[in-house]
Parts: sequence; C-alpha cells; structure tokens
Amino acid sequence: MLTLHFAPHTVCLATMIVLEELELDYQLKTVDFAASEQRTPSFLELNPKGRVPVLATDEGLLSETPALLVYLAECHGRGRLLPSTAFARAQLQAFNSYLCATVHIAHAHRMRGERWTDDAAALAALRAKVPQSVTAAFRVIDEGLAPGSWVMGDDFSVGDAYLFTLAQWLELDGVDTSQVGRVLSHRERMHERPSVQKALHREANP
Amino acid sequence: MLTLHFAPHTVCLATMIVLEELELDYQLKTVDFAASEQRTPSFLELNPKGRVPVLATDEGLLSETPALLVYLAECHGRGRLLPSTAFARAQLQAFNSYLCATVHIAHAHRMRGERWTDDAAALAALRAKVPQSVTAAFRVIDEGLAPGSWVMGDDFSVGDAYLFTLAQWLELDGVDTSQVGRVLSHRERMHERPSVQKALHREANP
Repeated sequence: MLTLHFAPHTVCLATMIVLEELELDYQLKTVDFAASEQRTPSFLELNPKGRVPVLATDEGLLSETPALLVYLAECHGRGRLLPSTAFARAQLQAFNSYLCATVHIAHAHRMRGERWTDDAAALAALRAKVPQSVTAAFRVIDEGLAPGSWVMGDDFSVGDAYLFTLAQWLELDGVDTSQVGRVLSHRERMHERPSVQKALHREANP
Repeated sequence: MLTLHFAPHTVCLATMIVLEELELDYQLKTVDFAASEQRTPSFLELNPKGRVPVLATDEGLLSETPALLVYLAECHGRGRLLPSTAFARAQLQAFNSYLCATVHIAHAHRMRGERWTDDAAALAALRAKVPQSVTAAFRVIDEGLAPGSWVMGDDFSVGDAYLFTLAQWLELDGVDTSQVGRVLSHRERMHERPSVQKALHREANP
C-alpha cells in the first residue's frame, strides 16, 4: 500500500494527480501545517527536511516531487506517463527541475521567505517581487511549451500534473495571466481530466 | 560530439566531473558571466532561462543539472553511475532535487538575490542568513548520508559529483564546517579521484 503524507494546497497535488492517473490505491495522511506538524519529531523521522510530500512505499520512504512522479510512473505504472526515449525523458526531467528549483522557489518567496531571511522589511520586499519573478518564470514555460495539448506534445506525462499544480497559484501570486495564455489553456484542459477532478476532490476531503 | 556551455566556479562542474568519469569526448564553450553573456540574444536562443549549464547533443539541447547528469549516465554511459534498482534511482533523484531546489537555492541568496528582490537592504538581509540556511541544508545531507564512501553507499554515482560541486562553496558561504564533517570527508575523497582532478583542471583551463 502507498501512503502519501500530504498537506492541502501544496505541491502534493501533483503526486495525487499521478496516483489517480495510474489508478493506484493510496492512503492520505494529512500533515497539519497550521499546527507546524511538519516540524515535530515524529514527522522529522519520516522526512528530516520537514516538508511534504512524503510517500511511504513497500521499499521505503521517498520525498521530493520530481522523484515521486517518475518513481510512481516507472515502478507502479509500467512506464505510463513517461516519454519512451531517454532524450525525451531528460527533457521532461529538465522541465520538472525548472518547476522545482525556479518556478516553485519564486512562488515560495511570498509565503516562505523566512527560509532566507528573518528581517520583516526584507520579507515584505521578497513578497513585493513575487508577481514579477513568477510571471517571468511562467513566461519561459509558456513560450517553450511543445506544440500539442501537453507539456511533452501529444502525450500526457507526469510533467502535466506538476505544471497544473503550480499553475493553481498564478492568481494568488499576482501573475499577469494575459502573458501566459498557453499555460492557462493547459490548466483548463487539465481541469477536464477525471484524474484531476478526483485528486482535487480528495485534496478537499482527505 | 557533446558541447558544454559552461562558466567556471558554477554548478557546471558537476556535469564536467560526470563527463570525465564516463571518459566522454566533449568540448567546452565558456559563457562570459562578467559580460552578462548569458543574457544576450544568442545565448537565450540556446537557453531561454539564461543559465548554465547547457549541453548540446546530437539529439538537441538540454539544461538543468539533475537532467544532464542522469542523461549522460543513461545515454552515454550505459547506466554507469546510476543505481541498478528503480527505487534507488528515485532516492538518487530525490537527493539531486534537494541539492538543486534547497541547497543550491540557499547558496544563491548570497550572490543572486536580485532574482527575488531589487531592494538593497533586503539583498543584504538575504546575504546575512546564508551561513545559517546553507549550514542547515548541509546538515540534513550530512546526517542522511548512507554508510559507505559515497552518496548512495558503496557505489559512486552522479550524486557524488553534484554534492562535491556544491560543497566547493561551503567556506565562501560561511558554513560552520564543524557541523558537516561527513560532507567534508566526502569532499576529500572526491579530490583524490582522477575525474575530479581532470574536471578541475579543465575548469581552470577551458
């Protein structure tokens, strides 16, 4: 059995969409961010980084979204949701790395600035630039999307689940959405998928 | 032929070490950061993100260190430098993601804070917390290293090249190295490898 330690309205949604796409059985355990449960000794035993998602598998614990998405597709989905060539898998990996280390990080400066400063004025300055930096990061994605409906072109992949998840926050981050029309269209197409609807329902009713 | 668009004293070193480990022929093209060459139209055609490394391959261009390292090992190294099981590959991917999105990002707040704020006082505040945040990130690695000489245990992998590269900056980031003794020992073991010596030589003489 797979257990996902998760919190709502976080990047965990990407992993949930992939779990639903692959029609896997999984259990959700909510980590109570309001009570800072992610910093308790018992959670830090699961993940010393104090972050979600954490996936408990029969082989052990795993964290970090780019690792979870590929692991699920490879080990529990017989390679579904991954490109068939090594070069295309590397392109997908590059896409996921950019989401993880640039897009998500730009977003995190709105809510999680205390990772990088304790100064109140500096925290406000970080929040002030979020609309600009997140817009710039999404513009790179918007302009680089392959022709076709999905991140990798005609074939749906784990990258679509990841992009959709971060695109949930565009308006909250103050992004000028008129500059990222293809990302918005992608988000609408994603909303139509049963897997996405199921994941959003489970996120709201864990 | 593989061409690596690179800049010295950056994360590009990780890819160079893997190229040397796999004994691959490659050409270096220096991107002149002092002249902001990474923001010129001709470089942005190679990589719209304006970052290094970029690897030009017979199949196309690739960026993002976690993608390059696995691509080289998988496609040009017949799987050398990667674990043999899918779960262990996911653990390695999780390790690389943490380096990319937490360790490298904490470090980047010293030199590249303008990504997240334009305010001079806030930039100084970001720099001030770098010793603390980078130490904390490396402590997670130090405490989580598998028993054995290398990141994944007894077998050398691409994760070792990546860890070594970021550990080059410990002292510059003001890290309390007494707290990360296992990372320091790893760095010393890496220095003894011919691949690392060759990569450092080519970095200094591109």
